[in-house]
Amino acid sequence: MQPIANRMLNYLQPQMYAKFTMLANQKGCINLGQGFPNFPSPQMIRDALSEEAQTESLQYTMTSGHPKLLHSASKFFEQQIGCKINVDKEIMVSSGAQAVLSCVMQGVLNPGDEVILFDPAFDLYRPMIEFQGARHIGIPIIPKKLNNKQEIIKRFKDGKFQYSQDDDWELDFNYLERVINKKTKLLLLNSPMNPIGKVFSTEEYNQLADILDKHPQVVVCEDAAYHHITFGKYQPFNYPRCITHPRLKDRTVCVTSAGKMYSSTGLRVGFAVGNEEIIKGIKAAQTYHIFCLNPVIQTATAKCLDQTLDGKYFQSVKNLYEEQANMLLKGLVESRLNMNYWVPQGGYFKYFDDNGNRLTRDFAFAYYMINEFGVVCIPCSPYYENKQLGQNYVRWAFCKTTETIQEAINRLK
Amino acid sequence: MQPIANRMLNYLQPQMYAKFTMLANQKGCINLGQGFPNFPSPQMIRDALSEEAQTESLQYTMTSGHPKLLHSASKFFEQQIGCKINVDKEIMVSSGAQAVLSCVMQGVLNPGDEVILFDPAFDLYRPMIEFQGARHIGIPIIPKKLNNKQEIIKRFKDGKFQYSQDDDWELDFNYLERVINKKTKLLLLNSPMNPIGKVFSTEEYNQLADILDKHPQVVVCEDAAYHHITFGKYQPFNYPRCITHPRLKDRTVCVTSAGKMYSSTGLRVGFAVGNEEIIKGIKAAQTYHIFCLNPVIQTATAKCLDQTLDGKYFQSVKNLYEEQANMLLKGLVESRLNMNYWVPQGGYFKYFDDNGNRLTRDFAFAYYMINEFGVVCIPCSPYYENKQLGQNYVRWAFCKTTETIQEAINRLK
Repeated sequence: MQPIANRMLNYLQPQMYAKFTMLANQKGCINLGQGFPNFPSPQMIRDALSEEAQTESLQYTMTSGHPKLLHSASKFFEQQIGCKINVDKEIMVSSGAQAVLSCVMQGVLNPGDEVILFDPAFDLYRPMIEFQGARHIGIPIIPKKLNNKQEIIKRFKDGKFQYSQDDDWELDFNYLERVINKKTKLLLLNSPMNPIGKVFSTEEYNQLADILDKHPQVVVCEDAAYHHITFGKYQPFNYPRCITHPRLKDRTVCVTSAGKMYSSTGLRVGFAVGNEEIIKGIKAAQTYHIFCLNPVIQTATAKCLDQTLDGKYFQSVKNLYEEQANMLLKGLVESRLNMNYWVPQGGYFKYFDDNGNRLTRDFAFAYYMINEFGVVCIPCSPYYENKQLGQNYVRWAFCKTTETIQEAINRLK
Repeated sequence: MQPIANRMLNYLQPQMYAKFTMLANQKGCINLGQGFPNFPSPQMIRDALSEEAQTESLQYTMTSGHPKLLHSASKFFEQQIGCKINVDKEIMVSSGAQAVLSCVMQGVLNPGDEVILFDPAFDLYRPMIEFQGARHIGIPIIPKKLNNKQEIIKRFKDGKFQYSQDDDWELDFNYLERVINKKTKLLLLNSPMNPIGKVFSTEEYNQLADILDKHPQVVVCEDAAYHHITFGKYQPFNYPRCITHPRLKDRTVCVTSAGKMYSSTGLRVGFAVGNEEIIKGIKAAQTYHIFCLNPVIQTATAKCLDQTLDGKYFQSVKNLYEEQANMLLKGLVESRLNMNYWVPQGGYFKYFDDNGNRLTRDFAFAYYMINEFGVVCIPCSPYYENKQLGQNYVRWAFCKTTETIQEAINRLK
């Protein structure tokens, strides 16, 4: 008996994140690998869950989501993002942003379709695309500049990091025009981008719209899981986005995560907002997979959205993450490690390369960090179609407590 | 732009259950359609959820499930079902039994594979199979006998219904031998069976094992979502099952539902127990869909399993359902409706046909019941490959309060 479907045979091993978290636990390492916050979840969400568990019906909810949650989320997104949402047709929830993305793939892609990604791309995108019999094409995004330690140090003013254009990564629009064709069904982008922290600019979206105007069949999926964490000139939620771009919004589905917004990656509530037709396809996929979500989790999330509607809570979250990012960056540039650094415009992570040292390829380097320093970071070749390009990079998570980051810095001294 | 994948185009309408529940609400009907209990969820589960919301980490859990839940469930199943489980390899959880089934299809089926079902089969099975590019073959299960009103009434002794062999439905093993072939990858059976309530016997499993011995490539999926509700000679949990059958268990994955067990269909916790290799495939599918479950729901479920380990709680659940089933049956046979009835050996539902009246095909009949009686039941042709066969039947749910059932009976008088 060979019971396992062929499509799964390459995916039976634990994921990289699980593997590195296991290693961290076994070896007593500081885990700056997997992107889960290790500070306490907000009491607001615990209390909402406790209360709703006592009062909310525990029976099936609608496949598109509990009406309370759909209303609260629509209101929140309308206020914070500035997009208009028809609550009956243009929004749905699933079991985390990842399940939303999986439903997008199932609901949109036919076998033989092509999907354009920008590398480095979140490593779960590719298997999800392959499972539909579709093909992925990764377009590398290239850093404008190598930022060595000395340059980074100069940009700290009063302990606060000054962002500059040197932190940008650039998209090759000529490359995009060459690979896009009539088989292209989906363009999947992630802003703020995991792992590099890039935020796409309005100018970039205009150029993208110019190209997509020639390809009316292409659906845009905007993965905005980190839309509440933006640095420098970008405001949380209200930064350049596909879902609010006048020439992109009608072909876009935007994916977000309540778990990420409330620093509770185990919450498992994700949203899809966008074009009614795309939402129909996603909902059909959900009907035949999880069917519906637990109502308690949904109404508790609705309460949190209502309580944070004015955005003040997220200003403090953004400030916290920016402090942690600055602290880790400062610690890294003052450490023994001789690396180039890229400073995120948003998200949970910072990014660095091995400064051309061929001995320290990404996995070798990550294992070396574990064994010699007791600190876990994440190798980045799995984010790239072209592994040669990706092996120069590792990712450090700063969604961790001050104590954790301080201990990592101490170990790297 | 046609954004929706071809595989979804036939599945964009709301499901039958959702449609009939909407109708019930609009028209003020008694809803004996969708199989959700309308009595209160056990306080035990509400309290467990409230408590765990305050103390459990709200970050990612393992894809296979929270260790606490995997341990508690293994212990429970070992004690109640009598199967030995390796907690690291032979059990996993997903977001409800339906998500487990969907992961089974994704993890096991290749395009072109064939799946054998027994009709009437739960209507979500077929789309799940088709989405993998596999083919389903439904083998009709035929009632031994038509039970008309008078015969049913005779079998009530002191208000309690006496089960007999006349309630059985029979599997055509010759048919099975004719259709099984080297392309058959999966045999999917449901016991107690939705919608007919059949429980497969040891004798039937022996015959099945004789046939499957000649087809070593076939995986058996035992959908036992109703394993805690068995009537007549069958005990909850401990009735003839694939997962404990000596010649079937090594090729079996058994699917169950904590939501069904605790009368809370919104809980969204389902289990897969079985062969290590099959579990590997299911886990891979889960990794790239929902990734993991909410930890609070998992540890709360673990608490409930611990608290009900001795099985006493489920004895009272079974008694409750048996009372409701008897009450509804008695009401139906004493009503104006002239039907044949089949009495379930387990599950939430009873089953009846239209006594040969060609005017009352299943959907027409169900709409007639809504408009003329204000009572909702579920038409059964969607459960059949051969719709002609299925259109003779409708399904009544008795997982409802005494008040609800009484009101339905009053309306049918």
